[in-house]
Amino acid sequence: MKKNARDAIVDAAVYLFNHKGFKGTSVRDISEKSGSNSANIAYYFGNKEGLLEYCFTAYYEGYLKEMEKAVAYLEDGAIICLKKTLERIIYYQFENSQLTRMIVREMSLDSQMVREIMSTYAMKEKYFFQNIFEYGFANGEFRQESSGYYLLQLKGLLTMPFLNTHYMTEVLYLLPQEKYFADKYLQELYSWVDGRMNSQQQGKPILTVSS
Amino acid sequence: MKKNARDAIVDAAVYLFNHKGFKGTSVRDISEKSGSNSANIAYYFGNKEGLLEYCFTAYYEGYLKEMEKAVAYLEDGAIICLKKTLERIIYYQFENSQLTRMIVREMSLDSQMVREIMSTYAMKEKYFFQNIFEYGFANGEFRQESSGYYLLQLKGLLTMPFLNTHYMTEVLYLLPQEKYFADKYLQELYSWVDGRMNSQQQGKPILTVSS
Repeated sequence: MKKNARDAIVDAAVYLFNHKGFKGTSVRDISEKSGSNSANIAYYFGNKEGLLEYCFTAYYEGYLKEMEKAVAYLEDGAIICLKKTLERIIYYQFENSQLTRMIVREMSLDSQMVREIMSTYAMKEKYFFQNIFEYGFANGEFRQESSGYYLLQLKGLLTMPFLNTHYMTEVLYLLPQEKYFADKYLQELYSWVDGRMNSQQQGKPILTVSS
Repeated sequence: MKKNARDAIVDAAVYLFNHKGFKGTSVRDISEKSGSNSANIAYYFGNKEGLLEYCFTAYYEGYLKEMEKAVAYLEDGAIICLKKTLERIIYYQFENSQLTRMIVREMSLDSQMVREIMSTYAMKEKYFFQNIFEYGFANGEFRQESSGYYLLQLKGLLTMPFLNTHYMTEVLYLLPQEKYFADKYLQELYSWVDGRMNSQQQGKPILTVSS
């Protein structure tokens, strides 16, 4: 029961941060929405900042765990490993779409907390990617281009559908909540890897989305 | 002088919204930062929401004007027209990077204002792109794939560097404020068009970044 109360607080907070913004949400709002009293919120998270920090940490710990699972594929080559990594990330973000959206938006602010997250988690994420890139540069699978620009584009492609759910449904008429969307979008990321990074551009694509 | 006071208010507001969030910024903060008293702010914009709405409108009016300028290139083909459109957008966003960042972040919230902006400006933007896509589908320049997925990826690529300036400088060590960055990133977008949309993937790229 205790764990459920904590999860309910987090879910309510993420929902409210996405609708009213972090600063526009009060502890009282979170208390009302989650059905927990504010003493409970204070017990688990200290204050609203502590709750946000918990969200960041939980998100990135889970995210990096998914990336780690894909590292084993490096012996099958950099392209396969990169695609497996993208697969893990897309489905993780898909499963945690509200949280992902909140995190991506909050990461664009200039706050002390964001700087700390950058210097730990975003750096770790970068090193995972860079490892794969360098493996692929060394064995000739990838075109020798700037890792920074590759990662910048990958991050843009990875985060766009989760940040802009309203744009997707109301302007593009796509349904980001459907598993079908995640599958199809992952295939687009694979095409990006094949078209942009793969040094053997004419070759057949390695690994396609199976579902 | 009056126009300058108004611009100073807008600049101060955009800066504060990017650092403290919209809800975390008060009219008093804007007044202090801009050197205008709050009666002046009320005179020009009504309230804080009116100021935000002004920012949205000014941003999108300018953005769509840039897109319009590229429409003339459609007679040179869809690929050239699309690349010219991307060029206009990238340099517009580069020139207005603080404003772009604020707009992209605010667009990810579920508010009434965002819904209204979506149904007018984001729809207009979509129709501009769709026109180009359909021209390219009809004359065989583009692969016949989903316009929605093309646009989704383009928007992700277009907005990423402006939304995440801190990530770029502190994690990727790229300098989004430099004109050099905008030039190089535009070339990446051209490569995306050539690699992903161009039906003649083997062909030489049409139009490269000149500077």
